[in-house]
Amino acid sequence: MTTSINEQYMRAALVEAQKAYVIGEVPIGAVVVHDGVIIGRGHNLREHLNDGVAHAEIMAIQEACGMLQSWRLIDCDLYVTIEPCLMCSGAIVNSRICSVYFGSRDPKAGAVRSLYQVLEDNRMNHQVNVTEGILSKQCSQIMKDFFKAARKRKKKN
Amino acid sequence: MTTSINEQYMRAALVEAQKAYVIGEVPIGAVVVHDGVIIGRGHNLREHLNDGVAHAEIMAIQEACGMLQSWRLIDCDLYVTIEPCLMCSGAIVNSRICSVYFGSRDPKAGAVRSLYQVLEDNRMNHQVNVTEGILSKQCSQIMKDFFKAARKRKKKN
Repeated sequence: MTTSINEQYMRAALVEAQKAYVIGEVPIGAVVVHDGVIIGRGHNLREHLNDGVAHAEIMAIQEACGMLQSWRLIDCDLYVTIEPCLMCSGAIVNSRICSVYFGSRDPKAGAVRSLYQVLEDNRMNHQVNVTEGILSKQCSQIMKDFFKAARKRKKKN
Repeated sequence: MTTSINEQYMRAALVEAQKAYVIGEVPIGAVVVHDGVIIGRGHNLREHLNDGVAHAEIMAIQEACGMLQSWRLIDCDLYVTIEPCLMCSGAIVNSRICSVYFGSRDPKAGAVRSLYQVLEDNRMNHQVNVTEGILSKQCSQIMKDFFKAARKRKKKN
């Protein structure tokens, strides 16, 4: 898979992140790709659904499971704008995702490179290939914009 | 909280595990308790829902979030028959559960005591109290029974 194809899928994940941004959710987006086709899309909906499980990766994985009618997402890859947290990394392992591509690291909660490196832990029953840094500037910029605007709103109130 | 009250809630989690057992799912059950009331129940439904995210803890947490209309399960405790995996441990941290009580360890995938100890990791933005060993014999027995029966069925075919 060439870099430009990876960027194409990450752009689709960024479109998802933008959907979260405009409704006031932390702007993280994800897509699941199977045989070159996007079969799951998700963006963070924690506040709107009142559900701490409703992260972008979980939403995309569940949609992909529905599409394939299987909990095993064999030969599927996941693209996500920000490094997955522990919950999402665990969901990626549990659903047997093949490869994960993420944009920017999350030093406070990332479980793929930052706090933990769970996707490549060979004690688990499944390991996941990891590539980071795809469109990382755009992926981190939308987060910076979001939190800057949130701080501004807070100051006004 | 006395041991007998903990056992009472673990019995409710075991009832959930039994619901999974009778429909051929790995028999793990969980409940979320708030102010002495069970506000979320869940059992493993991975095969029936074709969804790798559908673990007992996730189902119980999502029901509890719906009950409280909040993703923050403040002052809530979770009882689960088997040590949570990485995904569920991450969901427990993300939803700000106060205390986790589990029955038996899962040496192959447990992320609370066995492979990882994520609930007490002080690098995370939330820590969770952990008590293990509540009705551990019953919690592991239903798993042993399930896998023994599964092996028998496999031999017959």
